[in-house]
Amino acid sequence: MKINNECIFCKIINKEIPADIVYEDTDFLAFLDINPRSPGHVQVIPKDHYRFVWDVPKAGQYFELVKKIAGAQKKAFKQEIIQGRIEGKDVHHAHFWVYPDPETLGDKKDFKINAQKIIDNL
Amino acid sequence: MKINNECIFCKIINKEIPADIVYEDTDFLAFLDINPRSPGHVQVIPKDHYRFVWDVPKAGQYFELVKKIAGAQKKAFKQEIIQGRIEGKDVHHAHFWVYPDPETLGDKKDFKINAQKIIDNL
Repeated sequence: MKINNECIFCKIINKEIPADIVYEDTDFLAFLDINPRSPGHVQVIPKDHYRFVWDVPKAGQYFELVKKIAGAQKKAFKQEIIQGRIEGKDVHHAHFWVYPDPETLGDKKDFKINAQKIIDNL
Repeated sequence: MKINNECIFCKIINKEIPADIVYEDTDFLAFLDINPRSPGHVQVIPKDHYRFVWDVPKAGQYFELVKKIAGAQKKAFKQEIIQGRIEGKDVHHAHFWVYPDPETLGDKKDFKINAQKIIDNL
């Protein structure tokens, strides 16, 4: 696995730093953003340390997972509009944001409950 | 093909409304956004009229195309950081924004030249 020892996301992948994980498989991890734009704001990342989303080899599989999480958020938060963002200026490990519309009702800082709602709808 | 007669993007697909198209195949169309955030800001859309990006069936193929355009933008505008957004509140036809970082040098309103630069690097 490609790891960068200075990278906070690599530390989350290795469970050195805790996070509210909603999905994990061999290649990808999805967890709640600690600065959420809305309840259930998720970061979807590859386990290998790539600088940008565009560098991830299994792009189709990556996006299918983002779509799956969007589907769970739609049901979990009763929100039709699910947004996504690819930026990459902050943490230098590829990450794809997926989150219910910022006008979604609920407490965005209620991480445990929001994570469980997504898990229950995946 | 699923068409909505009131939809501006369906009119672009049917060539009833002009656009600076950078890529077209059986399922997808990519063209410059008329309100660009940066030079070479592209909208990637399915030809079938779906309300949201998450409703598009060939999700992997859709994202592979977005990735391909990001790669062309990176070369065309000499910009390492390419961003993406999925919102969906404005035009009610699925669209995925992909654009060079807003700090990218160049005239974002120079549509013909910017489109050609992307085409040349696809």
